Amino acid sequence: MEINPPQSIKCKAAVCRAAGEPLQIEEVVVAPPKRHEARLKIICTSVCQSDVTLWRMQGLPAGFFPVILGHEAVGVVESVGEGVEEVSAGDVVAPVFLAECGDCADCSSKKSNVCSGIPFRPRQGMPRDEGATRFTDAAGAAVNHFLNVSSFAEYTVVDVAHLVKVHPAMPPEKASLLSCGISTGMGAALKAADVEAGSTVAIFGLGTVGLAAAEGARIRGASKIIGVDLNPDKFEIGKKFGMTDFINPKEIGDKSVIQVIKEMTGGGADYCIECIGLASLMSDAFLSCRPGWGKTIILGVEKHGSAFSINPTEILQGRSIKGCLMGGLKPKTDIPLLMQRYINKEINLDDFITHEVGFSDIDKAFELLIEGKSLRCIIWMDK
Amino acid sequence: MEINPPQSIKCKAAVCRAAGEPLQIEEVVVAPPKRHEARLKIICTSVCQSDVTLWRMQGLPAGFFPVILGHEAVGVVESVGEGVEEVSAGDVVAPVFLAECGDCADCSSKKSNVCSGIPFRPRQGMPRDEGATRFTDAAGAAVNHFLNVSSFAEYTVVDVAHLVKVHPAMPPEKASLLSCGISTGMGAALKAADVEAGSTVAIFGLGTVGLAAAEGARIRGASKIIGVDLNPDKFEIGKKFGMTDFINPKEIGDKSVIQVIKEMTGGGADYCIECIGLASLMSDAFLSCRPGWGKTIILGVEKHGSAFSINPTEILQGRSIKGCLMGGLKPKTDIPLLMQRYINKEINLDDFITHEVGFSDIDKAFELLIEGKSLRCIIWMDK
Ligand SMILES: [Zn+2]
Ligand SMILES: [Zn+2]
Ligand SMILES: [Zn+2]
Ligand SMILES: [Zn+2]
Repeated sequence: MEINPPQSIKCKAAVCRAAGEPLQIEEVVVAPPKRHEARLKIICTSVCQSDVTLWRMQGLPAGFFPVILGHEAVGVVESVGEGVEEVSAGDVVAPVFLAECGDCADCSSKKSNVCSGIPFRPRQGMPRDEGATRFTDAAGAAVNHFLNVSSFAEYTVVDVAHLVKVHPAMPPEKASLLSCGISTGMGAALKAADVEAGSTVAIFGLGTVGLAAAEGARIRGASKIIGVDLNPDKFEIGKKFGMTDFINPKEIGDKSVIQVIKEMTGGGADYCIECIGLASLMSDAFLSCRPGWGKTIILGVEKHGSAFSINPTEILQGRSIKGCLMGGLKPKTDIPLLMQRYINKEINLDDFITHEVGFSDIDKAFELLIEGKSLRCIIWMDK
Repeated sequence: MEINPPQSIKCKAAVCRAAGEPLQIEEVVVAPPKRHEARLKIICTSVCQSDVTLWRMQGLPAGFFPVILGHEAVGVVESVGEGVEEVSAGDVVAPVFLAECGDCADCSSKKSNVCSGIPFRPRQGMPRDEGATRFTDAAGAAVNHFLNVSSFAEYTVVDVAHLVKVHPAMPPEKASLLSCGISTGMGAALKAADVEAGSTVAIFGLGTVGLAAAEGARIRGASKIIGVDLNPDKFEIGKKFGMTDFINPKEIGDKSVIQVIKEMTGGGADYCIECIGLASLMSDAFLSCRPGWGKTIILGVEKHGSAFSINPTEILQGRSIKGCLMGGLKPKTDIPLLMQRYINKEINLDDFITHEVGFSDIDKAFELLIEGKSLRCIIWMDK
């Protein structure tokens, strides 16, 4: 049976044409997928902090715009490029910013999740087609991709190395949460830190990533899960994800966060997880972890590009620091395990969904995240 | 059978009375061991870099002197204090600066070697007797201990938590090497880094610690062991300990050490080990390790108390940094395993002994180390 080659699709996309300007929902043309690629019909997506960061960032190279943001999503495979066998039309998949080619030294190693076959780079198009884009606007001009996903569009093209199959029992909006932020936080606890039962965990920053780290620590049976955040509302929210203690740095008088954590844990937390991206917090996290075996996990992308400093005397006492993308999880290997845990009712994903809107209200989803009112706002493409 | 309580012993010791001044071999009185303590007759000792560092260091608190330095040694137990059962008179033991009480959370954990029952502190006397000293000089004045060992004396008193039994088949001068520097380097490769067969290792600084790290990497079957040192003579020496490649930072033109290591290893070493104690080298080591799983081990005590800085973007690529004392080895648990490996002819200790002198020539042993002419100069107490 010969199948007609896939054609271009006209559809709606939220195009970002300049830093900080409201997204324009406009018609775009999505080219057919080429070799190693699949075209997805997006079912739902959500806004992650990195979308907001890039959307607001001043001084990006001129060529960054126009761009279609969005990198947490679930979609249905509409068509596949030449030679693609891993997925086929009708498969429900979650696109992920990080690749897992399955062949490289990193994908073959248990120690790495940083695929070197398809390295993570801030490219603006298809990773295995020299960064070429599959989007054009109504005027025929190229529109860029973002983080290998670009899910703020009814259709998008993604390299199959960036696709994770979604378990049939998994609701799409729950699966979409696992594309980035929540996998990052849970992975930090489950993989990068490898939290042990009975241990103490301090989490710096209680956005979605930090709360997911708490949830990961809860699953592992941590005895104390300390959240650090300037927003006092986070205490109640954190309890839903296993947080046992809360520190508001504004309400500890003359003490430092480091001192308070040391007091709460009898000498320092077993694991400290930095989820904000501030050099000063990275140093605080490091100093808040226990001598002997204390491990600090760096998840946040430093907002100002600043370096953080380490006192060698402190690290000589057996402490360690590890940084990672997506909490050290391999997308295709580990995200399905999280899906299975959700299906088994072992992990709380439901409480991360605080709002839902239709695609035309995507600006509302941005607002809610920027104002700190939402954890995740699901954007339904068909509403 | 009732044994007479041990008496004070008069003997010779090399007393350091002021920074940088030649050691005075003089008569001291060594008090009997108290509870938890043993008095040792030192058989042989050697000079480690930390002895030199402290001996030369200006601006130490006045109370540091007079002091008996020395912390790599082997001795025979002459007598033990009340309640001591672990060792008895006649046992051959190696004293170690780090304790292993066996009871605390750290000693009970596989993850730590930083005993919290008897924490490592720069105290100047017995760890479980409020730092009281067991040495007095001819004038009756107290003489301080150093690093819980003070082996530059014919007799010394050491807490039993700091004693490792020496295997009868182990020559004392070989066992003494395992008290500090060589265990630090080998431990870094075998325990802290946990070097895997076929992996690449870069070692910054080819003193005894760095060469021992090379030897540890060799035992593990590392495919490439790169030494970095400003002294070109170290290339030949390093080969005895498995070093396969050598970088002299003065002879790489416009390239940085980081670039050269990345070229040699196809993207970065799997493990980098810093053995000098310079913040800038710690940062270089970190940047020379491979994204994905590269691990940097910090062994050096920073010479100027400087912090080292970490670029968060670099650490997010899956790199990690760990610091440790004695390479992460637990003295009583792990040093006997190294002794067994020596007895089995699996490890090269012999080539670390480059010189031997009698006690009266201890200044010669200092000179040889300071001038970079020796690795270890064994000081025989009876010669
Ligand atoms: Zn790969
Ligand atoms: Zn994200
Ligand atoms: Zn202990
Ligand atoms: Zn030493």
